[in-house]
Order: sequence, then C-alpha cells, then structure tokens
Amino acid sequence: MADSTSTKSRKRRQPDPDSTTELLFKNLLKPDSVILQTLQSLVISTASASSSKPLTLSDLSLSSSCREVTDLSLTSVQSEIEALTISIVQSILSGKGFSFNVPSRAATNQLYVPELDRIVLKDKNTLRPFANISSVRKCTITARILSLIHQLSLKGIHVTKRDLFYTDVKLFQDQTQSDAVLDDVSCMLGCTRSSLNVIAAEKGVVVGRLIFSDNGDMIDCTKMGMGGKAIPPNIDRVGDMQSDALFILLVEKDAAYMRLAEDRFYNRFPCIIVTAKGQPDVATRLFLRKMKTELKLPVLALVDSDPYGLKILSVYGCGSKNMSYDSANLTTPDIKWLGIRPSDLDKYKIPEQCRLPMTEQDIKTGKDLLEEDFVKKNPGWVEELSLMVKTKQKAEIQALSSFGFQYLSEVYLPLKLQQQDWL
Amino acid sequence: MADSTSTKSRKRRQPDPDSTTELLFKNLLKPDSVILQTLQSLVISTASASSSKPLTLSDLSLSSSCREVTDLSLTSVQSEIEALTISIVQSILSGKGFSFNVPSRAATNQLYVPELDRIVLKDKNTLRPFANISSVRKCTITARILSLIHQLSLKGIHVTKRDLFYTDVKLFQDQTQSDAVLDDVSCMLGCTRSSLNVIAAEKGVVVGRLIFSDNGDMIDCTKMGMGGKAIPPNIDRVGDMQSDALFILLVEKDAAYMRLAEDRFYNRFPCIIVTAKGQPDVATRLFLRKMKTELKLPVLALVDSDPYGLKILSVYGCGSKNMSYDSANLTTPDIKWLGIRPSDLDKYKIPEQCRLPMTEQDIKTGKDLLEEDFVKKNPGWVEELSLMVKTKQKAEIQALSSFGFQYLSEVYLPLKLQQQDWL
Repeated sequence: MADSTSTKSRKRRQPDPDSTTELLFKNLLKPDSVILQTLQSLVISTASASSSKPLTLSDLSLSSSCREVTDLSLTSVQSEIEALTISIVQSILSGKGFSFNVPSRAATNQLYVPELDRIVLKDKNTLRPFANISSVRKCTITARILSLIHQLSLKGIHVTKRDLFYTDVKLFQDQTQSDAVLDDVSCMLGCTRSSLNVIAAEKGVVVGRLIFSDNGDMIDCTKMGMGGKAIPPNIDRVGDMQSDALFILLVEKDAAYMRLAEDRFYNRFPCIIVTAKGQPDVATRLFLRKMKTELKLPVLALVDSDPYGLKILSVYGCGSKNMSYDSANLTTPDIKWLGIRPSDLDKYKIPEQCRLPMTEQDIKTGKDLLEEDFVKKNPGWVEELSLMVKTKQKAEIQALSSFGFQYLSEVYLPLKLQQQDWL
Repeated sequence: MADSTSTKSRKRRQPDPDSTTELLFKNLLKPDSVILQTLQSLVISTASASSSKPLTLSDLSLSSSCREVTDLSLTSVQSEIEALTISIVQSILSGKGFSFNVPSRAATNQLYVPELDRIVLKDKNTLRPFANISSVRKCTITARILSLIHQLSLKGIHVTKRDLFYTDVKLFQDQTQSDAVLDDVSCMLGCTRSSLNVIAAEKGVVVGRLIFSDNGDMIDCTKMGMGGKAIPPNIDRVGDMQSDALFILLVEKDAAYMRLAEDRFYNRFPCIIVTAKGQPDVATRLFLRKMKTELKLPVLALVDSDPYGLKILSVYGCGSKNMSYDSANLTTPDIKWLGIRPSDLDKYKIPEQCRLPMTEQDIKTGKDLLEEDFVKKNPGWVEELSLMVKTKQKAEIQALSSFGFQYLSEVYLPLKLQQQDWL
C-alpha cells in the first residue's frame, strides 16, 4: 500500500508536462487576455482607493495623543537639531539644567489604530537628565548622536548604523546603545530615520515593469536580466517612478523571485516583482511603499504558508513594533494575500510529503497571530490562519516545484490571478 | 588621566576635517594623476601575467592523479548523462549490476597544489552499488538527481538547490542529502555545478566602471546609482564584459561598499567595486573570476583585519574545501591584500577603542590559518597574520569611520593606492 501510493505520488510529482495534477489545473487556465482583464478591474479599484486621501492621526483627532514622524529635508533636520540645542542651552542658563525629553518607545506606549490599520506610538515621554547617575550616559550618547547627525546633514552623505557606532566606540560601548538612541533621536526630532541619512544595509531586489531614478541614474528594471536591480539603501535618492504594470508582486523568497525573473513573468502579466529575501528590511519596505503610493498599484503577496509568511506580510502591511513611531512611512496599506495560503495546500493538491508538520513554536506563533488586530480585521485571513493551526501543516513556496520547476510561473500564479484568488 | 585621554581621543575622533590624524595622512596624498600612474603599472604587470597561459593540472602532469571539472554546454551535459545511463543499462544487462562510480570528495582526497595555488580533488573513487543496503538510497537519489538535471538541460532553465529538493521530498528526506549528491553528480559528469543549471541564491552586488550583459540585457554599472547591480545567479548568461577600470576592488562588507558607491569612488579612481556582503557565494566568486580573466585587471581586496577577513580572501583566492573539485572555475588567482591589514592599525593610528580584542576562537583560527599553504606561500601575509595573532587585536573596515565617515574613500584608500601598499 505504502509502496503503491509512493510510486503513484512519485509519478504525480514528475515535473513532466502530462503530470495529472499539473494538467488538471493547466486546463482551467483561460487565455492571458481574459486574465489581464480581471487584473484591470483590480487596478481601477486600487487606484480609486488610493486616490481618496488616506486617513491621518489628525483626521481621527488622535494627533494629540499619538505621535508620528515625517520625512524632513536635510536643512529642516539641521534647524531642528539647532533649535533643540538652543533650547537646552537656555534651560541650562536659566538653571533648569540639561536634559532631553525623549518619547517612550516601550510596548506600553504603542497602539494599533484600526482606522489606519497600523501600529502608532502614543505620546508618553520620559525625561533624560544629565544630572542623574542613571541617565547621564544615555543623555551624553543622545547629545553625541545629535551632533553626528548634524554633521551628516551638513555633508549630505549617508552612513550605516555601524559607521555611527564606530565614530565613538568608547562612549557607545556596543552598537545596540547607539542604535537605540538613534531611534530616540528620530522620535525627538519627529523625522524618519532615513531623513537622518542613516541607512540600513540593502537586501532587496526588484525586477519588472518599473523605471526609476537611483541617485540620478535612470534604471529600467525590464533590462536588469535575471539578477534584477538591488534596491537602493537611501530612499530619498529614489524618484521618477514610471510603470505600465498592473500589479506589484511581493515575493518572500529569493528562489521564487529568481524563477519569475528568469521566466520574465512580468512580460506575460505586466507587473513589478520585488523581494527582500526573507525578513523585510527598511529599504525594501520604503521602496514598496513608494511604489504603491506613486504608482497606485495593487500589491499581491506570495509568501510561504506558515506563520512567518503571514508575519512578514504584517511587517510590510502595518509595521514592526520597534519602529512603530515611523509606521506611517514604512507601511504599505492594503496588501492582498495571494498565496501560498493554507487552503491552497488541498486546493492545489500539494503532495503530503511536500507539506511540513508545524513545530510547537510554529503553532504558538500562529495562535498568537490570531490575536493580532491586523489579522482579526481581515476575516479571510483569520479563516486561513485558523485552518493552518488546525491542520498543523505548513508549506514553502518551493513546494510547488513538485509539479515541475515552472509550475509556479506557468500554472499556479496565472490561475490565482484569473480566479482573483486573493484576500 | 583617564578623562584627559578620553577627551583627547574624543577630539581626535571627531569626524571634523582638521582632526589631527586625518590631516596627518591627508597631507601625504599626492595629486590623483600621480596615483593613477602607479595603478597603470600594476595593470600592465597584471595583464602580462594573465596573458601567459595559466598552468593546468596536465602541465604539472597531475591530470591522471587529480580531477577537475569544466564548464559544459547544456547539450554536452545531456549527452554525458545519456552516455552514463546507457553504460549502467549495459552493466545491468551484462549481469554486472547497477552502481555509480562516484569521485570521493572527502578531505583525505583533497590536495593543495602550490603551482596552481588552489585546492584540487585527487582521483579516489567510491562505488555506490544499488544492491547494497548501505548505498541503495544514495544510489537511488543519484539516479533521481541525474534525471532531474537531464530535464533541466532539456528545458534550458535554472533552478535552486531548494527547488531540486522539493521535486522529491519523500526520497531526499532533507536538503543536505540532495545537495551532497548534486556535488557528486558534478564530479561524476566532470562539469561545474553551474553547467547543471542549478544556481545559488544571489547575494553580491557590483557597481563602477563595468558594462556587461545579463540574460541579454546590457548593464552599465556606472549608471546603477548607489544600490548597484545585483550579481546574476547564473554566470552562463553573463557576457560581453567591457571596462576602462584600472583595478577591481573586492570589498568584504556591505557598509564599506555603500560608502564607496555613494562617493562614486570609481569615478575618481576608475575601478569596479564588488561585494558578496560577507561570506563569498558561488555567484559572486564566478563573477569575480570572469571579470579578472576577461578584463585582465588586478584585484585588490578590502577586508576586516581579523582571521575571517583573511579566510574570505582565501575562499576567493584558492577555493573552499567542499567545492575543491571546481576550484579551477571558482577561484581568482593573485588577489592582493590591500587592507585593513594588522599593520595598518598602528600605521594609520586606529584609536585603541576602535580595535577589538580577539577571542580565543579568533586566535585559534588565526593560528590555524598560519599553517595553511595559501598563507605560507605569501611571506607578507604570514608577517601580517603573525602580527595579528601577536597583538591579539582585530578591527573592522568601519573602524576608519572614527576619522570621519568619508575617511575610507577620501584618505585611506587613495593613500594605499598611491603607496602601492598591497601584498
């Protein structure tokens, strides 16, 4: 018995065109023109949605009780720092002493705003006095970071957190300390970390129907071969985005990205394909948001069918807790969950041996996610996630390779688009 | 006292132009034209060296006792597999049974050839019979991988090791097994893994004075902004390399790469800047070798001043042990160690607090490296490494930020080039 199934499934899993399952779904495919029409409607609905001015904290009259940062020009950052310094000098001269008033970034000071569908920072502040043994170091580090940022704004160059750390190892001692204060400084000045010209290592790549300028060079992402274009670390030098794409395909994994890039999926279904190769980094999140807002395109996400796939979706969608003060600039609203969804495992007859049992940790993470607001607000997601936790099965995007290496680009994705099968 | 030094060193470490140390070295800088001349001579010597046909195993009459793989066309890979299959069928029909004769990739079968300056595989083989309980699984896996590779060669597409694994999870059980057999198959067929169209996830980026074609698209790496161009995972689709660069700058870390990219260092000193962001991946190693051989340019390496920096240099230079069978295609001979070198720490007055104490593990790794042939063959390297182990100090490239964020691109590197200070 075991044998017969194994041989049966082995035959089924042959990446051979007339494999039963592959054919089964291939036959459901309508001509591309039909699929493109379904996408057109998605684009229109998205564009109209995006054109309606997005809600802000002040619309919800939360601006008093919540805090958000914005992009500031280098000159504004300069004057902000100078103003802050002057106020401190005055405080010292007037005998009130030297201290910074720093927004608290603690979990207790964070709030998920359903109307905005993202995590924001509440308005609790903590005083950081110099004349206090417990805060004198942090106060000094804050002053030092402010002066370094001021130099960056004068020079107009970008550096990494690591560079920042090394300018005063003796004071900072280890990078976690300078990093933490850097986030404090963003909140204090009320500007994004990228406005401070401190950048994170680039990780993401983009390919497909997108033209944009990177530091003054025009980049045509349809002419980037299979490698694609590395997403620039400094979003403020990215601009002039043009595209004839119908959607943005956000891919979790490198391997799936390469498959789609080699097959030039974006030429069959005009789209922009982007991946951060796993955990979303700030540069990719900023880039995705910029594409979405400037091009007003729908974003469809292709992630593993496991709790982390959904978690990654959530970071793109409504932000990570430790950078909640910047959620407005880092998050991309209204990302659709295209696949691989727990219900796809049976729907697309993913062979049992390509599904992996969830670990205890997986199941716990899944259950925790069910409690998260960003999941709750989407009944479809709750349903899928509940199914995952119930069946205790997960699957990677690559599991589709069991139907042949190009099944993803030639059958699964086209069918998903045709059936408008996103949540 | 502690205070006075701390303030003194803090002043010295200010990224402020008239910082004493920075000036000290800035004043040594000659006009760029002079520096460019010194580079010209390096180019000429390198070109003449490269033009002399490189030694092969057969030149050393080692071809009988050592084995190497070569790049094969897809059609040759096909026929190789078909020939192998036929020979097995014959063996079965003639009653000799079903078995593969697989080159051993064990450490005992590896050899460092000083003349070639790389690790090669000796000619020991092991039999993998089907009719043996201990090898029946591996034999089956080998047959399965061969058939999958055959399909790839027919379709002419590229897949990742992960894709390969997922085509038969039940048989392979975990990816290490399919990966290992994949390397076996490379050796058996005598071709590189890239000839098998199995690619690794891309990691590296390149920017600067290089034009090349990626999958048919012409890429101009001077027009890639700050992000640079992602190095294509499939080297066989890379070609038409053109460059007016004087050297290739191989950078270990992302952060240093971004500094040089933003400052467009390659326009001041015509060069190609490439990084694998840490451990060298196969795609970047293949790309570097291709640049070196096609453009006949010197390669200067900028790595951390620690044992791992040197180890990374060695992987680019003479290969990693587990892929020694492919060292001929993966390695780039004659890489110069530009910096950060242990002797630089004092020479460039890197502040004490920017140097890190080596851990026991660091020191052990350093001592082990001193025993490695590829280090021994270069007296300069032995000297530097011995100094590192003696002083027990290491430093990252980023430590130069203590003299100002652009010290690397504006003072350190130009001075290094001017003084031809490479080993």
